[in-house]
Formats: sequence, C-alpha cells, structure tokens
Amino acid sequence: MFEARLTQGGLLKKLLESVKELVTDANFDCSETGIALQAMDNSHVALVSLLLRSDGFDPYRCDRGFSLGVNLNSLNKILRCAGNDDIITLKADDNSADNLGLIFESPTNERVSEYELKLMDIDQEHLSIPDTEYDATIIMPSAEFQRICRDLTVVSESVSIDVTKESIKFTAEGEVGSGSVKLKPTSSIDKPEESVTIELAQAVSLQFSLKYLTNFTKGTPLSDQVMLCLSENMPLLVEYKMDIGYIRYYLAPKIGDE
Amino acid sequence: MFEARLTQGGLLKKLLESVKELVTDANFDCSETGIALQAMDNSHVALVSLLLRSDGFDPYRCDRGFSLGVNLNSLNKILRCAGNDDIITLKADDNSADNLGLIFESPTNERVSEYELKLMDIDQEHLSIPDTEYDATIIMPSAEFQRICRDLTVVSESVSIDVTKESIKFTAEGEVGSGSVKLKPTSSIDKPEESVTIELAQAVSLQFSLKYLTNFTKGTPLSDQVMLCLSENMPLLVEYKMDIGYIRYYLAPKIGDE
Amino acid sequence: MFEARLTQGGLLKKLLESVKELVTDANFDCSETGIALQAMDNSHVALVSLLLRSDGFDPYRCDRGFSLGVNLNSLNKILRCAGNDDIITLKADDNSADNLGLIFESPTNERVSEYELKLMDIDQEHLSIPDTEYDATIIMPSAEFQRICRDLTVVSESVSIDVTKESIKFTAEGEVGSGSVKLKPTSSIDKPEESVTIELAQAVSLQFSLKYLTNFTKGTPLSDQVMLCLSENMPLLVEYKMDIGYIRYYLAPKIGDE
Repeated sequence: MFEARLTQGGLLKKLLESVKELVTDANFDCSETGIALQAMDNSHVALVSLLLRSDGFDPYRCDRGFSLGVNLNSLNKILRCAGNDDIITLKADDNSADNLGLIFESPTNERVSEYELKLMDIDQEHLSIPDTEYDATIIMPSAEFQRICRDLTVVSESVSIDVTKESIKFTAEGEVGSGSVKLKPTSSIDKPEESVTIELAQAVSLQFSLKYLTNFTKGTPLSDQVMLCLSENMPLLVEYKMDIGYIRYYLAPKIGDE
Repeated sequence: MFEARLTQGGLLKKLLESVKELVTDANFDCSETGIALQAMDNSHVALVSLLLRSDGFDPYRCDRGFSLGVNLNSLNKILRCAGNDDIITLKADDNSADNLGLIFESPTNERVSEYELKLMDIDQEHLSIPDTEYDATIIMPSAEFQRICRDLTVVSESVSIDVTKESIKFTAEGEVGSGSVKLKPTSSIDKPEESVTIELAQAVSLQFSLKYLTNFTKGTPLSDQVMLCLSENMPLLVEYKMDIGYIRYYLAPKIGDE
Repeated sequence: MFEARLTQGGLLKKLLESVKELVTDANFDCSETGIALQAMDNSHVALVSLLLRSDGFDPYRCDRGFSLGVNLNSLNKILRCAGNDDIITLKADDNSADNLGLIFESPTNERVSEYELKLMDIDQEHLSIPDTEYDATIIMPSAEFQRICRDLTVVSESVSIDVTKESIKFTAEGEVGSGSVKLKPTSSIDKPEESVTIELAQAVSLQFSLKYLTNFTKGTPLSDQVMLCLSENMPLLVEYKMDIGYIRYYLAPKIGDE
C-alpha cells in the first residue's frame, strides 16, 4: 500500500510542469524515505532527478518499494484538473498496482475529484550520480536566470558561463550580433531571495546549450533561488530546492565548435 | 418598426459568444413579448433556445412580428465592436427590413457607433419543446460545471452524470485512466451563488458528449448558477437564467456503447 | 564616436514595436541634433519618419554624422531583452562602426547587459517631406483611434474619414454590412488626454486602407493622443508626439473604386 497526501497540491502541479517537456515516461520510485524520479531527457543529453521527502507528506505510507511507471504528459493533464489550493493524495494498491490513484480535495472540501491513471512498465537503468566538489557554486534569483536564458536565445543557441570571484558573466554570440549579461555578488537582508552569491574554488568558463537551460528554467516557479554548480569537464548542475525536496537538472558542457 | 434598447449591452455580447459556435445562421423572432431564437446546432444534435423578454429593454417597440435572419458569426463580430458598458439598440424598419441596425452608445455618450448587418432568409422549422417534469433538477455554480466539463475532457469524450439525493457524480473513463468529480448539496447564506441543490423525484444515470456540454458552458458568463434537468430517455436541459430572459441548451443522452 | 543614453529605455522598446512591422531595414541617421529614421514601408505605400531629439538623452554625443543601417526586427528582438525600466545606451565607434552597441542597465544597477548588433549597408533615398497646411487637423485619444481602426476592420478593408466642424466620422462598408463611428469635439480639463479637437480650414472626405491605419496604431503606447492631418489629394499624416520627439506615418488616400 502506497499513500501520500500533500497539503500544497499546487507544488506537484508545478513539479510536473517542470519535467514533462524533458521526459515522456518515467518511474516514480516510492520508498519509506520518499518519492524519487530519475530520467534522461528524450534525446539522452540531460538528466533530471527529483526527490520529494516522505516527511513533506501527511500522512505518508509506503509498506514496500513501489516503482510506478507513468506517462508524464498524461499525469500532467490530470494534475491540471486539480486546483492550486487542492490537497492531493497519491495512492497505489499492493495487489492491483496498474493504476495510480489521485484524489483532489478542495480546501473547503465541498468538491472531491478522483482520478485513476494507468501505469506502464518502464525499463530504466538507474544512473548513480557521484557526489562532486564543484569549482564554482552560484546561487541567484531563479527568475533572473530564466530571463537571462530567454534573452540570450535571441542571439545564439549556446551560452558561455564565466565565473570569477567578482562576477558571473553569461555570453552569447551569433549571426545578428552578440549579447552578454554580467551579475555581481549582492546580498540583501530585506530580500534574501534577490541575493547573488558566488562560491569559487577555481574560475570556470563553460559553454552550454540554451535550449536545455531554458527547459530547466521551467523549474522557476518551484523556488525563488536557483543553484548552478560548475566544474571543468563536468556536467552542470541546476538545482531548485523546495521545502520538501528538490529538482536537479544535469547537462554536459559543449566542447569546442560543437 | 422594431426597436429594442438594452442598457447593459455587455449582456448581448456574452449571449452571442454563447451561441455562435453551436449555430451559424438563425432567425431572431421579435414580437411584443420579446426576442426569441431557437435553432438546432450545425450537426443537428443539440438545440439552443433563447429568450430576451421585452420588459428588459427600454424602450422596446415591436409593431408586428419580425423574423430577422442573421449570420451569428457576423453579428458577433459587430457586437465585439461595442464596449462592455455600451448601451446597445437594435433596429429594423418595416419597409426595408433587409438590414439589422445596431447602435452602440458609450455611457458618457461622446462616442456613437452605428452598424448595419445584412439580413438573410433562413428556412427554419420551429420545434415545440414540451414542458417536462424532470426526474432530477440540479442547480450549481456555473463556473464549477464549466470546470468539471473541461477537466473530464482530459480523460474521455463522454461523461456519466449520476444523481442521487446525496450527490451528483460526474464520471469519465478513457484510455489513459478515469476521473470523477462528486458534489454534495450545500447552501450558503453569504454566498447563495455557490450553493448546490438537488431536487429529485427519481435517481438518474445518464451519459453525454463532453464536447457539447463544454460548448454549452460558453453560457457561464451569463449567470452565476446553471440548472441541469435530467430524466431517463429525455434530452438534458442546461439553462442559464438572466434578469431579462434565459438561454437553454438541450442534448440527447448517449445510449449504450455509442 | 556616437553615444546616446536614454533614462526611459522603455520608450525605445515601444518605438521599435511601432515601426518593425512596416519597415524591415532602415538607417538611423545620427547627428548633433538627434537620431532620425525615415523609410518607406516594405510595399512602398506608407512612409514612416521618426525623430528623437538629442536633448532627450543624457549624455548625448555625436562627433560627426553617422548612418547606422539596422535590421529592425533584430534590433527589436534585442530591445525586448531590456527591462521596461532599464536605462539604455546606444553606442557606435568611429573606427569600427559595423556594430551598434547597446547597454541595458537595471535601475538598481545590479544587472548590466551588453549587446552588439551587426550593422548593414542600406541604400536609401531620403525623401524630403514638404511642410503642409492641412485642411483638417484632428487631435484625439490614441486608444480611441486604435479601437476605431480595429473595429471597422470587421466590416471592410477601407475606411472613409469625413471631417466637419461638428464631427469626425469614420465609415466602412462591406459585404456583411456597414459601420460608422462618429466623434464630437470634447474637452476635459480633468482629463485633457481624453479630449477631441478639430481644426478645420475646409471639410474633407477621404478614404484609407484600414490595414495601414491599424499598423500605424502600433504607435498608441507612445502617446495618449494622436494627431491626424488631412487634405484632399494629400497623404494623411498620423503623428504620435513624445517628450523627446515624434513618430509620423504618411499614407496616400485611396482614389475611386480602388
């Protein structure tokens, strides 16, 4: 028996929106510790990894490990039927786990919607992601990162990210011209969510596909801040932290004139 | 001479929006009692019937019966040129009734727009709709009904409506899964427009096309509440009541595995 | 060396939006007095002329005449990357003026974006527009003019503008019917931007393409009021005045049954 009840159902809606364009089908791996999903994107370039800790749900019950294979597009469509303030309960039975049950309760409880989503068998190798010490770790407003990715798409398909102690510089060069945005570390006691911090072991300069970065920024509604972790010759990590877990995107840098 | 002046012109705009996708051409039948329109939808499955009582207009003048054949799409386009707060006057002459005149006056009167819409001859049999005692009569928030129809479209093309004394249940079953929404009777003195009432002579369980129901919910802006009337083997009646009249939609239930 | 810094960068964004659908490529002619652009629209029917006076910038520096050939669509895309409150600086070097430099500074200065747009050689004959005494000069709310053009497009592709001392009348006739909007001179001390004034030497009645007029109304966000100047057998002048300059559109009237 698997059952997980989330008071802020809107979070689950946002989470699905932030994954569904990268990944079509994936397993939700449910265990005592929580719900995890890990999947390569459809073109096998980026990796998505999300975790919702069991203590974020009330109640949370998971007797044994469940691997729920879901078409994320269908799940997303069903979650759109939940109100942003609805309480969402996820359910699967031991015996007949070929359905994921979803219950949406409006806060005042006068409307209860129940959905069943057919599950599928998904073969999926689990990649272990090694813990890494990154050369540069940036924390910045997520909306700002989203905007930079969107803006620079005007100029080019890829962006260079250059991090020094003094600044993070995003640069794009293309046929119509070039563009760059430079951010300096700032901290605001009044508005901590607007601060920009740089932790640096070593200056880095790496190039990434703007299409993928823009896709990752679908996670923006999940968190005021985004964390970017970079090292030479290592995949970039883009992380949006939530109260009850996180979503992480990994993307390998472009090399040379790719 | 036909002349009808409506202070809340915005109502006429909403009304046209609620009909124009179901019906292309129709006659506005004008008489002393008011303006009526009755038409089958383009695929002859649903029936639309609307009435605007003469006492809702000031002034209202109709010397003899007028049947004004109108392309609803063209009329809708012209009505979109009226402001939501404009006073709208409809006009037709005895002699040269091949035009419907429309006058839009802004509330402060500094702008007056005049339009003429060419009329057309439309052959139309008038169906008499018998007065019916329904097994179940539901009154519920129109926005809630609209949302249920939209949500369940995710799952299937048709919906079952099951009414008992305790609840109304909307259920849809499809390839990706199933969904259901259950409403219980509620009443609110503070917000009567949010109440749900069930009047029941006999429990009913009927199935309808969601495409048509969704189309009917274009009437949602006309009224806070919608009335659903159901009987076994009878067309469903969906009614939006306005201060000056109503719009009614009729739809036959689906039978068996249609 | 050319450098022009505009505190209200949003103005430049609106300006480009108001030109970019009429003209693809054009020269910005920069001199001591300011920045000017003049171009026929792509189908050589309408003329656009805009001026930004040097005193509207701070600082403004232009050592010699510069003619900066720009693809307006690309420039517009880059300007969309500027925030509405950003300070925008335009730059070109003496030596290597094959790029237009753009710097966007956020008001609080924590973000600085720099773009370079490649310039192009554009052959362009400069048309001298003679100063004209017009028969009729109308000043009216720009949003009202925009709305009239949009509304009458429902009925026809062209509009007649009839000006007398008492009123301005816009009339359109088409297959589905006809429409007309009549405005009377009004003045409001409280809301001068809503006033309608007519200056008339001689009554005029002229017909214009609604497609072009609608395109001109892209200038609406630049000014609360628009000026229409008409004379028989002369191009119509549509002008939006800004604090630091103007944008003018010219359009020849339609003749006969064109």
